[in-house]
Amino acid sequence: MKKLIGAAILGQSGGPTSVINSSAAGVFLEALKQENITAVYGAKHGIKGILNEEFFDISKEDLEELELLKNTPSSMIGSVRYKLKKLEEDPSDYERLLEVFKKYNIRYFFYNGGNDSMDTANKVSKFFKDHDYECRVMGVPKTIDNDLFGTDHCPGYGSAAKYVATTLMELYHDATVYDTPMVTVVEVMGRNAGWLTAAAQLAIEKGQGPDLIYLPELTFDYDEFFSDVEKILKQKSKAIIVVSEGIKDKDGLYVPEKFTNLTTDSFGHAQLGGTAEVLASEIQNRFNVKVRGIEFSLLQRCAAHLASNVDVTEAYQAGVEAVKAAVNGTTDHMIGFKRISNKPYKMEYILVPLDVAANTEKKVPLEWIKPHGQGMTNDFVDYALPLIQGDNKAPLVDGLPRFANLKKVLVNKK
Amino acid sequence: MKKLIGAAILGQSGGPTSVINSSAAGVFLEALKQENITAVYGAKHGIKGILNEEFFDISKEDLEELELLKNTPSSMIGSVRYKLKKLEEDPSDYERLLEVFKKYNIRYFFYNGGNDSMDTANKVSKFFKDHDYECRVMGVPKTIDNDLFGTDHCPGYGSAAKYVATTLMELYHDATVYDTPMVTVVEVMGRNAGWLTAAAQLAIEKGQGPDLIYLPELTFDYDEFFSDVEKILKQKSKAIIVVSEGIKDKDGLYVPEKFTNLTTDSFGHAQLGGTAEVLASEIQNRFNVKVRGIEFSLLQRCAAHLASNVDVTEAYQAGVEAVKAAVNGTTDHMIGFKRISNKPYKMEYILVPLDVAANTEKKVPLEWIKPHGQGMTNDFVDYALPLIQGDNKAPLVDGLPRFANLKKVLVNKK
Repeated sequence: MKKLIGAAILGQSGGPTSVINSSAAGVFLEALKQENITAVYGAKHGIKGILNEEFFDISKEDLEELELLKNTPSSMIGSVRYKLKKLEEDPSDYERLLEVFKKYNIRYFFYNGGNDSMDTANKVSKFFKDHDYECRVMGVPKTIDNDLFGTDHCPGYGSAAKYVATTLMELYHDATVYDTPMVTVVEVMGRNAGWLTAAAQLAIEKGQGPDLIYLPELTFDYDEFFSDVEKILKQKSKAIIVVSEGIKDKDGLYVPEKFTNLTTDSFGHAQLGGTAEVLASEIQNRFNVKVRGIEFSLLQRCAAHLASNVDVTEAYQAGVEAVKAAVNGTTDHMIGFKRISNKPYKMEYILVPLDVAANTEKKVPLEWIKPHGQGMTNDFVDYALPLIQGDNKAPLVDGLPRFANLKKVLVNKK
Repeated sequence: MKKLIGAAILGQSGGPTSVINSSAAGVFLEALKQENITAVYGAKHGIKGILNEEFFDISKEDLEELELLKNTPSSMIGSVRYKLKKLEEDPSDYERLLEVFKKYNIRYFFYNGGNDSMDTANKVSKFFKDHDYECRVMGVPKTIDNDLFGTDHCPGYGSAAKYVATTLMELYHDATVYDTPMVTVVEVMGRNAGWLTAAAQLAIEKGQGPDLIYLPELTFDYDEFFSDVEKILKQKSKAIIVVSEGIKDKDGLYVPEKFTNLTTDSFGHAQLGGTAEVLASEIQNRFNVKVRGIEFSLLQRCAAHLASNVDVTEAYQAGVEAVKAAVNGTTDHMIGFKRISNKPYKMEYILVPLDVAANTEKKVPLEWIKPHGQGMTNDFVDYALPLIQGDNKAPLVDGLPRFANLKKVLVNKK
């Protein structure tokens, strides 16, 4: 294996999770140790920071603060939603990236994100190769949606799943406290894959969960839905319902699409929201009961105080493994997880080709989803339970989390 | 002091908190120890459970499960929103209560709730006295709103304040992660008193809080608000705003009142909601930026996983003190807290006459509120900070909280 000497850069991309910074800690702390890596940079707002020549010099940071990144939610160096154009349509971004990489002799590129980010890393790597610029490009997975192909699960999912299950257990106690009829509809993130919504099953297993769960993998049927809600109301006068933001009816329409026009984000995804509220309001109209629509919103993806120890640890190690693999000659791969066993939980780190991970969404297996909103099978529980184990959160100062405080020293532009 | 021998009953009333069950644990465990107390009951759904002769025999519960109540959110034996009619209008409820108390020889009545609940306890006590039925009636304070008169603070507030401050710190990292303009509006509970909204200042003190805070104690001015939002957007392209659900303009209108008709709950309070969403939508229209409205909703009052140790401990002890005081001859009082010092935090338990606590809302002192949404003074920080200290949460089983599991054995009706 040829020794490749040069700088390393990490970019964070896409929506935050509780542990994306834990992966950053893994990349930074490992890269700082490697002899072949001459400088360690953090791109300000992902690929945009590279295009703009804006990156932080990580060697200027205190190691203690980099350690605290493990428990600091979101993307400390800034994230981005920016999709590269197709090369044949507009090569300017690719050319600019190559120019910047050359100027700073960046030979290691780590990109932490979801499907779109793996696609970006893959395209950049191909362009560099075609222009004979040697650079090792490694993906580090990240998404609360857990929808990356080629890996058993994704960093970020375990903590978000723990948030969903814990919060639903607490809500169960709150939303059933009066002796009057009440329907609570909770909306969970997950555009096309219902992994996070499925975590509601973990609360059901404790006897403190919702009555109905709806994943986007199954077609949402309004008639069946209202009929099921009515049955539960008759049985016990209270119902808790968990829905994915991405549920669609047989015509392919999202719930809020019946009421408002959807806008789209820069990746062309529909911006959702309001599913719980719309359904709650419809239930109120039909059954004349008190309702409450609750959207977990951003809270579910940044609740670092509820992060799972398994997730924090794996996210960190994924960063470390990416650096080690790159230094040892690997390129064009994402670090993935392969599960060896559930009980006890054992997994190993694997290399997934970037073009396998890119742009393919891994949905929840249909055989794990019980029909009619009835939740998930034991196979899902066996899968998900190991991922939410243990606590791992920031130390408290004044009763509040002590998150990392980076100096963020920008590298002088050349 | 005359020895009063008989049964004791606890009722839980009003909206849940993370620690109302901790007070229940205090009352139950202390009452079970007292020789003068012949039976310990938990009223199913507060005063309604007494009217219906539905109460649980607490002596049937395992002590370990009663201990777990300390970390179980909401009201384990069921809460209620039920306001007794004025005696002169309809004495039937009062007569029925007296009948039930006599039938079961209940001589100790503990009522855990907010202003309305203290009012209920007070009225019942007066009626019993007028009918020569000796019963010691003690209130245990409870409310995330922190608006009870005669006490430095209320159990439930510290944990909810810790939730608000912690979650806002996490949201700060999430909502500022992109380099594109964005306004996040967060809605916090608090109908007339802004104590909980004010807790946002604790996040600001850490440099990871909102830009603007609006309490219901000050008149909300739309022109000033939009002008301040615009300034912040120009300065740094992102704004985080925290509003109380109860803010009102100069005409006395709540934010959602401009858009929808309000309904009222059984106490005659307006049912609020949608303040964040309405403001976010208005900001989007005016400034053409991405917005997000987030309502902490029920999550802020049942997040036992984020409970403050000070709060859990004080809530428990308030229950214990209520029982001790009652057995020692006190009646018609609520347990209150008197602060001795902030640094180090010291307080003592005091007795507050029920008619002082009842129906008077304690608002945030105006001199603690900076004008124009600019947050709270140091006096508030000194006041609030001691109340959020330390963690105290349920043990984890399978990575999820192990809440109390009561048998809830109903007492046979006589």
